[in-house]
Amino acid sequence: MANTYTQLMDRIRDCSHLQAVEALLDWDQETYMPQGGVVGRSEQLAMIAGLAHEKLIHDQTRRLLDAATAPDGDEAAVCNLREIRRTFDRATKIPIELVTTIARTSSLAKNAWSKARQASDFSKFSPLLGELIDLKKQVAEHIGYETEPYDALMDEFEPGATSADVEKLFAELRDRTVTLLEKLRNAPDKPDPSILHRTFREPSQRTLGRTLAEAIGFDFGRGRSDVTVHPFCTSIGGPGDVRITTRYQENFLSSALFGTLHEVGHGLYEQGLPVEHVGTPMGSAVSLGIHESQSRMWENMVGRSRTFWTYHYEYLQTLFPDALLDVPLEAFYGAINTVAPSLIRVEADELTYNLHIVLRFEIERALFTGALKPADIPARWNEMMTKGIGVTPDNDANGCLQDIHWSMGAFGYFPTYALGNLYAAQFFEQAQKDIPDLDDRMAENDHKPLLNWLRTNIHQHGQRFRAGELVERITGKPLSIDPFMNYLTAKFSEIGGVA
Amino acid sequence: MANTYTQLMDRIRDCSHLQAVEALLDWDQETYMPQGGVVGRSEQLAMIAGLAHEKLIHDQTRRLLDAATAPDGDEAAVCNLREIRRTFDRATKIPIELVTTIARTSSLAKNAWSKARQASDFSKFSPLLGELIDLKKQVAEHIGYETEPYDALMDEFEPGATSADVEKLFAELRDRTVTLLEKLRNAPDKPDPSILHRTFREPSQRTLGRTLAEAIGFDFGRGRSDVTVHPFCTSIGGPGDVRITTRYQENFLSSALFGTLHEVGHGLYEQGLPVEHVGTPMGSAVSLGIHESQSRMWENMVGRSRTFWTYHYEYLQTLFPDALLDVPLEAFYGAINTVAPSLIRVEADELTYNLHIVLRFEIERALFTGALKPADIPARWNEMMTKGIGVTPDNDANGCLQDIHWSMGAFGYFPTYALGNLYAAQFFEQAQKDIPDLDDRMAENDHKPLLNWLRTNIHQHGQRFRAGELVERITGKPLSIDPFMNYLTAKFSEIGGVA
Repeated sequence: MANTYTQLMDRIRDCSHLQAVEALLDWDQETYMPQGGVVGRSEQLAMIAGLAHEKLIHDQTRRLLDAATAPDGDEAAVCNLREIRRTFDRATKIPIELVTTIARTSSLAKNAWSKARQASDFSKFSPLLGELIDLKKQVAEHIGYETEPYDALMDEFEPGATSADVEKLFAELRDRTVTLLEKLRNAPDKPDPSILHRTFREPSQRTLGRTLAEAIGFDFGRGRSDVTVHPFCTSIGGPGDVRITTRYQENFLSSALFGTLHEVGHGLYEQGLPVEHVGTPMGSAVSLGIHESQSRMWENMVGRSRTFWTYHYEYLQTLFPDALLDVPLEAFYGAINTVAPSLIRVEADELTYNLHIVLRFEIERALFTGALKPADIPARWNEMMTKGIGVTPDNDANGCLQDIHWSMGAFGYFPTYALGNLYAAQFFEQAQKDIPDLDDRMAENDHKPLLNWLRTNIHQHGQRFRAGELVERITGKPLSIDPFMNYLTAKFSEIGGVA
Repeated sequence: MANTYTQLMDRIRDCSHLQAVEALLDWDQETYMPQGGVVGRSEQLAMIAGLAHEKLIHDQTRRLLDAATAPDGDEAAVCNLREIRRTFDRATKIPIELVTTIARTSSLAKNAWSKARQASDFSKFSPLLGELIDLKKQVAEHIGYETEPYDALMDEFEPGATSADVEKLFAELRDRTVTLLEKLRNAPDKPDPSILHRTFREPSQRTLGRTLAEAIGFDFGRGRSDVTVHPFCTSIGGPGDVRITTRYQENFLSSALFGTLHEVGHGLYEQGLPVEHVGTPMGSAVSLGIHESQSRMWENMVGRSRTFWTYHYEYLQTLFPDALLDVPLEAFYGAINTVAPSLIRVEADELTYNLHIVLRFEIERALFTGALKPADIPARWNEMMTKGIGVTPDNDANGCLQDIHWSMGAFGYFPTYALGNLYAAQFFEQAQKDIPDLDDRMAENDHKPLLNWLRTNIHQHGQRFRAGELVERITGKPLSIDPFMNYLTAKFSEIGGVA
């Protein structure tokens, strides 16, 4: 008879097999499933999700969890028991009827959001959004929190993060961003991103994506790349099968280029998780914020660096001679690092991106304290955009209806995007200290030092450490704005100007 | 409270969702899964297969099945109850330990077969084959049979078929095949298939396959086509998502061309099953033999007909001008209809193909009566090949080790291939009678009359009728050799000769 810990692990691995199947069903739906498969797929997905949930919240899980103890000195088991307990508690604290109601409401809300966005009319989405917020408030009450309901929601995506901490970070982040932005506005230079909108044939973009993905370490023997409308990265059951997706726009190079580097960054994390712990918390990513730190580091700190393009630019020119032969490296480097306040989050530059996140954080929080009513979102949104970013949405579609997250009931998710940027900068600063020749190696297209550093310091630990603890262990300091602002100030002061 | 029949149907549809998921896991493994996913995939597959089996054999299924009655006048319900009972009985009669032992042994046997085939040494496969046969004998005893154990196995693939019936059909089929073959041997003409081995670039082959698939009615909005090592057709949960696969050989046109038409034939059947009965026997194919009749009809009776190529040959020449511009239609028609006794079943022509099947049927049956010992297969095989087909295998790889079926424990499967040819000819003969202008319409590339005929007479009925009953209902006669031999005699007498 296996001991209770081993039995518990078998059960958790079974849950993870079902999650892997769910991931494949999702991936297939986005990539290759014919249109006619839609109805069947939603039934298959509902069934597998139901089975995974049932298996997790089953009394047998509770019995094993209550009885299991970590073998002496087995740190991995300590982590697994802690994190399984956390997941189990979250899953069992919420009544199943509430889970079902949220699934149903969110399905309606996604549809309503899509129509509201098309009509650019927030009022079509507002009532269901209100219902979702009420339901999520109930979730927060069931989960429990120390100071405010929003914390319980954020905890799903960024375990351990609190509104108070995030508020402090974000306030400083906003102030320093605005200051830097002002400085850049007054600079004489105006970078010109228009060259990125010349014609870039898709086959060459594919070649480029594959070459760069391999250059930074993505293993196509344990992963693949496909085309979807919205790019994502998914792992089908572990580091052996990690799939990214990209979309190609022939009149905009950045979309696939930086989209690929971003998703590959996520993929490198998934491929670097410890194989021996696959299917358990020790074999899983820490949080969405830490995940985003990996994608943003490869996309921005590596992929938008001068060093990276000093090596790759000639190759890029040979792939797209018509578009780029007349463009000097410095002009290209300026173009891919153009700062320009804009309406749409996913198109924002590295500097103003976080302002979009801060805005969402503040609105979400106000919705959950009750200080803001759903119907008042558009007015508040537009006011905050004007004041905070300096541009005013011409309509709701380009304003408060631009993101899908709320319609899915994903409140507390947005902050992880900005946290990811901050983690990325703080990790990268440390990596630069730990690897004195990091830049020289990158200049030779050798990205192994950085990847190995990430593997050693982050990937191999799975969920052993919470995000905050991980940052302190690696960098000796709690998460701070400084590395990120230093990184941006150095980069943009040199390039200069706002487009 | 839903009545027991409705509850039973919900349960059966749940089983079918799991089977759909299994189908997707298999499809993905063959098409896009990276190498690194192998281990995880086998675990995911085992888990889903286990869940589907558990759900089927669950006591609740028995309770519902025992209590359920078909609503008055509901023929579909009568069919569903009959077929679910049949599946349930087959699944529950076999002890779970035996199922597990067979799965394990077959996994080892597949590996042993692969190595034995590579080494062309049957003795490396023989012991595990012996074990599998013993295990399958036990299965037959558990299932029960009237005259011989082999019937119980064949019944899995072709419900209602018996060795005695098949033996009679096959004896006549062999005799008449051999007679026709002798006649062709003495004919003066020698068709020349060598033109099919010129160079045919893959992109053009893809275009060709897609064009012809659409021409005969495959709906790419409810299906797709991909590339695999071994072509197959699979349905992911119903007629809305039917996927075929093909392999391309640039030095052999027939492989992808007729392979695609063959798999599309299977796909048209799956796409034609009644949507309102998806996930139940009424929404499923009758048997492997009937399935094969659909693939062979489109591949051979349509795809290897003069009428078909009279329309399409000019197009084919424009796709492959270097290979075919100097080849007249008649030479091409002769090439794709070349009769030539050969060692390998899957490469056999329409006439000699069935001799390969008859041989396997006789060997399988002898193995299950005990008249033949596994170790004696190679000698018997070679003797039968020499005597029956007139060619002698140079080694086991090209002889008794060529097919994977036995290593999977699939005994009683082979006969369905020949039955499929016979069903196809008998159906096609009837279609020609029922649709007087069938040939004229085909000559105009209009395949709707034939497809509609198949939809009306076969596809829409799901499993309402057993194969034998279906044939009698449609053609007014039991299955016979005549239509098939008449078809081949007419075709080959005119083309003439053996290559």
